[in-house]
Amino acid sequence: MEEELAEILNQAERAAGNRDSQLVISLCKGLHPADLASLYEDLDRDSREFLVDTLGATEFSEVLAEIPDTLVEGALDHFEPKEQREILASIPDDDRVDILQDVSESKRRDFIDLLDEEEQDRTRALLRYDEDSAGGRMTTQVGKIFACMTVKEALDHLRPNLDIVETMARIFVIDVEQRLIGLIRLRDLAFNPWDTPVRDILTPEEHTILASADQEDAAKMLARYDMALVPVVDESDRLLGVITPDDAIEILEEESTEDIEKGAGIAGEQSEETYLNTGVIVHFKRRFGWLLILALLAIASGYVMLRFESVLNEAYLLALFLPMVVAAGGNTGGQASTMVIRAMALGELDPEDTRRVAWKELRLGMLSGLLLGSAIALVAIFILPLFRPELPAGVSFATFGLAVAVALTAQVASSTVIGALLPIGARAIKLDPAVVAAPAITTIVDASGMVIYFTVARTMMGL
Amino acid sequence: MEEELAEILNQAERAAGNRDSQLVISLCKGLHPADLASLYEDLDRDSREFLVDTLGATEFSEVLAEIPDTLVEGALDHFEPKEQREILASIPDDDRVDILQDVSESKRRDFIDLLDEEEQDRTRALLRYDEDSAGGRMTTQVGKIFACMTVKEALDHLRPNLDIVETMARIFVIDVEQRLIGLIRLRDLAFNPWDTPVRDILTPEEHTILASADQEDAAKMLARYDMALVPVVDESDRLLGVITPDDAIEILEEESTEDIEKGAGIAGEQSEETYLNTGVIVHFKRRFGWLLILALLAIASGYVMLRFESVLNEAYLLALFLPMVVAAGGNTGGQASTMVIRAMALGELDPEDTRRVAWKELRLGMLSGLLLGSAIALVAIFILPLFRPELPAGVSFATFGLAVAVALTAQVASSTVIGALLPIGARAIKLDPAVVAAPAITTIVDASGMVIYFTVARTMMGL
Repeated sequence: MEEELAEILNQAERAAGNRDSQLVISLCKGLHPADLASLYEDLDRDSREFLVDTLGATEFSEVLAEIPDTLVEGALDHFEPKEQREILASIPDDDRVDILQDVSESKRRDFIDLLDEEEQDRTRALLRYDEDSAGGRMTTQVGKIFACMTVKEALDHLRPNLDIVETMARIFVIDVEQRLIGLIRLRDLAFNPWDTPVRDILTPEEHTILASADQEDAAKMLARYDMALVPVVDESDRLLGVITPDDAIEILEEESTEDIEKGAGIAGEQSEETYLNTGVIVHFKRRFGWLLILALLAIASGYVMLRFESVLNEAYLLALFLPMVVAAGGNTGGQASTMVIRAMALGELDPEDTRRVAWKELRLGMLSGLLLGSAIALVAIFILPLFRPELPAGVSFATFGLAVAVALTAQVASSTVIGALLPIGARAIKLDPAVVAAPAITTIVDASGMVIYFTVARTMMGL
Repeated sequence: MEEELAEILNQAERAAGNRDSQLVISLCKGLHPADLASLYEDLDRDSREFLVDTLGATEFSEVLAEIPDTLVEGALDHFEPKEQREILASIPDDDRVDILQDVSESKRRDFIDLLDEEEQDRTRALLRYDEDSAGGRMTTQVGKIFACMTVKEALDHLRPNLDIVETMARIFVIDVEQRLIGLIRLRDLAFNPWDTPVRDILTPEEHTILASADQEDAAKMLARYDMALVPVVDESDRLLGVITPDDAIEILEEESTEDIEKGAGIAGEQSEETYLNTGVIVHFKRRFGWLLILALLAIASGYVMLRFESVLNEAYLLALFLPMVVAAGGNTGGQASTMVIRAMALGELDPEDTRRVAWKELRLGMLSGLLLGSAIALVAIFILPLFRPELPAGVSFATFGLAVAVALTAQVASSTVIGALLPIGARAIKLDPAVVAAPAITTIVDASGMVIYFTVARTMMGL
């Protein structure tokens, strides 16, 4: 199935390259708009124009909502104003607003002027909401009926709007002030006697979201309560629109991608374009900032190494386990912070849980550190001597191995706790834990690991 | 809103601790099952029993599907067989199967025996599918009508099943062999004349998934094509059930969490319990494996340090920038692999794109490396001399700074390419890129960074 689709897309890509419009049309016929959008993205500039011309405005209007924001303006430019109007009028209003948010301001004005007056007003109203708010994401095309209606009146009221209402999974019941008082399912209308008052069969809606709220909150609400639609309301509880499950899925996936990227020190918003279609400069801008900061911070570890020159000079064999002790701290700190950041993202950790987190991670760190330390001590005491490396006079392999093990245990235990507490601390001072934790942990844990290692070695080996 | 809920849950937790059943009942009344499940999870063992007894079987049955798998058996044990039957019979069959998958085998048999015969058969059939397959996740409670029906007949056919059909957003049209031939929306039934043949108003369903397919494929299909339901079929195209949007959201969130955790070297499946409710030993098991492997691999870097003892001895100032050069490679390699792994997870990269990825990352690496190198060269040439550190005779700060810069550029450029290509290579030999990439990159890039640094320094500084 999936390979079949990939094959069709590849063939269509070649056909577009050869300007074979008949083949392109026959291959694209029956493809889902989401698949056509993938095809469009994979083409070069000229082939894209060819594809759009070949498919025509009607076919292409649904594709437009699926292609990455940055390509939208170029795609719309292929068309005459008459066709642009046709496209913009035919797509759901949340998709239209999405598209208009992505074009230049002058273009946006031109496009809005193409619409009829009612659509202009609705579009301008939606554009006032922040792009990342529930209001900026919602669709206003929702089934609404008044509480005073009967089932028959409700059905008659809904019938003319069938085409423009994106989803009828839930129909919202409002009063004359447009305030939301409940919802019914279409099935309740379909299977109840026509003279039943709507008021008698509605279910109160417990969960609504403010238009000004973060779109992520709406998506999480939908996911937590398995809602078919999340109603978006204003401060007076008037129904403005809904967030749909496909919006929620998109929002949650974007957030996950950004969390993954932040953990790797990649800054800024995730590009909507695919990895390959994103230019080197765009990639560079998102990655270089943290690279530079982390590089400068890493000089702290170098400074520690300079300060302990004498220890390393006297027992150069310490160099063999130095990278390991430092890295083990970074690894365990990274694990702990990843766990805690994800738990915070999923809403599992309150600020008052700090002590429980620290206690849990301290036990974990001690356990891991002791086991790792024992493993390395065994290596240092029983395997290392076989290679006859040099140790300072008076220092046995047992002492050396024990020193490494103690340092490793201390480093792992402390790094685990640091890794767990840093994201909590970052949140307490209103910083984004996912952004702050990784670089801070690297710096602190690397430098402190060297201090621990050299100090323990100097003390235990009497250097 | 959210704080209000947290406050109610906190009060209920305290009330359960004080065994105040009246307060518990009044606080829990009106709470969503998902919220009651959070409350249940936050309680200690005895308070959990108290909560379940206080709420009773009817109220608790919906909560059961929302609590983590590992707690289910304990929760069910609170009840008498009669109540257990009541609970198991009242929940949707996909939730029931989920629950039965989580209890011990003997318990599973006992529970199944409680059900009536028809439910027993259906439950056993569902239990045969792999837990992670579309069949293992689907619900069989789906609206089905036959193509030969009229709208009136279809409505009459659906009416008795209203309560047990989980979703009516799409009604599936089948032939007498149960093969799926299309779908209609409830609105098509509600708004069409009663004598319309169903066959005339159905839409063919393009996208179906095999019951044996990975549940992730079903979730991705739903997300990509904005589907209200994904129909699950057998090899003969017979309709078996559906995947719902809330299943899809859960599946995608689990996958994202696992990807995030894999990137940090955390192994195994994500625990369904919250971070705080997961025991130290469970956390330990998921984290220690990679810690140990990475620690042993890091000895490779230590070995490189041993081999270059003479270089470090002659110009110990090199230690100042050693951690930085090594870390810069790890950071940029980590960024590149994160980007590539996510692009692969989103289905953006085919194997034939390898050269394009390498070329893009090489340019990125060169650009980042040159800029980082220049920055560090400026630090080494203009700021470092102010502190009057020691350099070997005949080596100027300019030479020293240039050597560090060249090594840094080479390290960043090569690590970027390595970071990008390793996940692609892992996939080519059928390994999980997210699991393999992080440790492999750390090991390779750390050791190669030391080799590059010391070799460049020795050559350029004539040591």
